Amino acid sequence: MDLKNPVSRRSFVGGLAAALSAVGLPVELLAQQRGARAAQSAQTPQTMDQIQAAYDKAAKLASNENPYGPSEAVMKAMKDAFKYANRYGYPDGGIVKAIADFHGVKPENVLIGAGSGEILKVCDDAFLGTHKLVVGPEPTYMSVYQFATNSKADVIKIPLRKDYGTDMQGIIRATKNNYRDVGLVYICNPNNPTGNIVPKQDIALLLNSIPGDVPVLIDEAYHHFVEHPDYEESIKYVKEGRNVIIARTFSKIAALAAMRLGYAVAPKELIDRMRPVANGSINVLVKYAGVTALKDTAYEAQTRKLNNQLRKKTIGELTAMGWEVIPSDTNFFMVNLKKPVAPIREAFGKKGVFVGRDFPPMLEWLRVSIGDESEMNRFMAAFKEIMGEAKTSTSNPA
Amino acid sequence: MDLKNPVSRRSFVGGLAAALSAVGLPVELLAQQRGARAAQSAQTPQTMDQIQAAYDKAAKLASNENPYGPSEAVMKAMKDAFKYANRYGYPDGGIVKAIADFHGVKPENVLIGAGSGEILKVCDDAFLGTHKLVVGPEPTYMSVYQFATNSKADVIKIPLRKDYGTDMQGIIRATKNNYRDVGLVYICNPNNPTGNIVPKQDIALLLNSIPGDVPVLIDEAYHHFVEHPDYEESIKYVKEGRNVIIARTFSKIAALAAMRLGYAVAPKELIDRMRPVANGSINVLVKYAGVTALKDTAYEAQTRKLNNQLRKKTIGELTAMGWEVIPSDTNFFMVNLKKPVAPIREAFGKKGVFVGRDFPPMLEWLRVSIGDESEMNRFMAAFKEIMGEAKTSTSNPA
Repeated sequence: MDLKNPVSRRSFVGGLAAALSAVGLPVELLAQQRGARAAQSAQTPQTMDQIQAAYDKAAKLASNENPYGPSEAVMKAMKDAFKYANRYGYPDGGIVKAIADFHGVKPENVLIGAGSGEILKVCDDAFLGTHKLVVGPEPTYMSVYQFATNSKADVIKIPLRKDYGTDMQGIIRATKNNYRDVGLVYICNPNNPTGNIVPKQDIALLLNSIPGDVPVLIDEAYHHFVEHPDYEESIKYVKEGRNVIIARTFSKIAALAAMRLGYAVAPKELIDRMRPVANGSINVLVKYAGVTALKDTAYEAQTRKLNNQLRKKTIGELTAMGWEVIPSDTNFFMVNLKKPVAPIREAFGKKGVFVGRDFPPMLEWLRVSIGDESEMNRFMAAFKEIMGEAKTSTSNPA
Repeated sequence: MDLKNPVSRRSFVGGLAAALSAVGLPVELLAQQRGARAAQSAQTPQTMDQIQAAYDKAAKLASNENPYGPSEAVMKAMKDAFKYANRYGYPDGGIVKAIADFHGVKPENVLIGAGSGEILKVCDDAFLGTHKLVVGPEPTYMSVYQFATNSKADVIKIPLRKDYGTDMQGIIRATKNNYRDVGLVYICNPNNPTGNIVPKQDIALLLNSIPGDVPVLIDEAYHHFVEHPDYEESIKYVKEGRNVIIARTFSKIAALAAMRLGYAVAPKELIDRMRPVANGSINVLVKYAGVTALKDTAYEAQTRKLNNQLRKKTIGELTAMGWEVIPSDTNFFMVNLKKPVAPIREAFGKKGVFVGRDFPPMLEWLRVSIGDESEMNRFMAAFKEIMGEAKTSTSNPA
């Protein structure tokens, strides 16, 4: 299956994806369908109910989702907001002001979007035009590059360093060398699909090295899971008036991926350029959900704790078996299978375990999202059966 | 209050609107706030709860909403879909195929959007560029023109005829005279804010008169309320392979305005141009809601019946009082107040009745949405107090 056109991490209604969803099958489910089909022998799901049942019972470790679902307080906020389902002009719960207050900025510094995917698209529409350039790492979350290509802009992809870190020196060099044409620099921190952070020193170096008028989009979708001492959120640069756009989402820690809410925090001048190209079509439920989620720090802490415990446990088991894993501060990690991932993904699919798609050029690395304990047990059992111990291990088995 | 930049009929996160929603106040609520404030004397709402309470008790006749809310079956579908709130790759209920089947077209002929507002924006992005032209009536639903202006396209607005009908001859002439530059023709049928239909003969005339390669966007947001014998839905032209895009929404008859779902039906070649510029960020609940709503014909019939009865009753009372009303086949109508509407709207606001915004150049015409029976009683009572009988009436009072 060709996933060259993943228009959005957050929904599946672009290009190929729409054609697939037309028959009720989401992209990432379909991506593994050959495997799933084989597993079900003649029992290919035919009805929507069967498709749902097959999906529901799978271990869903393909899409960096929060397996625990929204908190009780957030669920209540959404159900209460149903009373406005038929309205346009309803009171929106003050979501923009709540976000602004949360970060200590003004409402004029905030733009909400239907998921941070919309924020990324808006940045493309606002800052990139025909033959403009976006500079960023590869692999990373490719939406920005895809939107850029759709709008006939060009992309300079800087390969990761040999240690799989974002090559900030390379990004700085490319930006300076092409300064006149660069409309946007994209940084994903922590980076997806690798899961590792961009150290605060590197962010500072970037901002201090490139011309100050180049907007830098820092995608902090996985911010809430990070514990690394060299990590720092970059909102402070917005407060300093730098040309930095921070993208955040309620899809991950708040478990609202399918409800669609993200936002940008940026200097007013940048928000003013972004706002006219935003669609601004956000449902009422998730506005109230967002206001509640920002206050629900206990749920957030609990999710982070569970996620990070399970991530460390799983990575520990894999490295003990001799497998190389990139250090991760997110709700996913990458393990080097040392052979093409695609057929392995099918094998996982046959066992009802959904794992990550291809991330070129790292086609021998498997991205695994952190599910709940039961899902991670199913993953490890499947991994041991399919992969076993690493053949050329240099580490010490436990 | 300046509403020159109404980026979306369906949400309020563009331009001015976002700044307002930042403090929890939606545009159409704010548009009447001076009036509402005066009514509450020193009790200006300060908290979100107070804002909600003030909004909840108002008669909401400003935004062409369905006052009855979603059907029980649709509510159940949404609540059941909460189980996917945290997911990306969930089974989407087959919404695109359900729409295609409903209209007897293929999934490749359907593009879903976050409200039909997104469909209108996508048409602009796909078919209009710098200095391209969109041709359509004025006044109408202005979103397409606003999006066009944002993307540096130009708009040729053809005034309504003296009988307030869409001037199809004028639209045809302008399209032919500017053929090389016209990227899109926009027709709203029935038209908003006037509420009257564009007769099927005029649609046929348009399509048979202009060059066949000019895409014609026909916005059928209010389709479901129409009973007029000269009206016809235009899906058949898509089936004929004409360059016609039909925009539909679940916001009106299905009462899902705040949940955000609309769609386009068009030839594959047009959908293929629209899809890459769509954001595609639609929440899971409304996908399941849409599938259910398409089947819920009893609710649809009941809503149409209630709406049309109340519309006829209200218009009957106004015309009996000597007021001129444009014949409407929708869930709103326009009445000629013979003086500027803006201060009258404030007077309604003081009585807790929200009525329509300004629709230039018809600044002496008030647009009134059809609420439920209680709301329409409140409207008529307020109207009699504020306006009384028409001074230059030529009709016979009942």
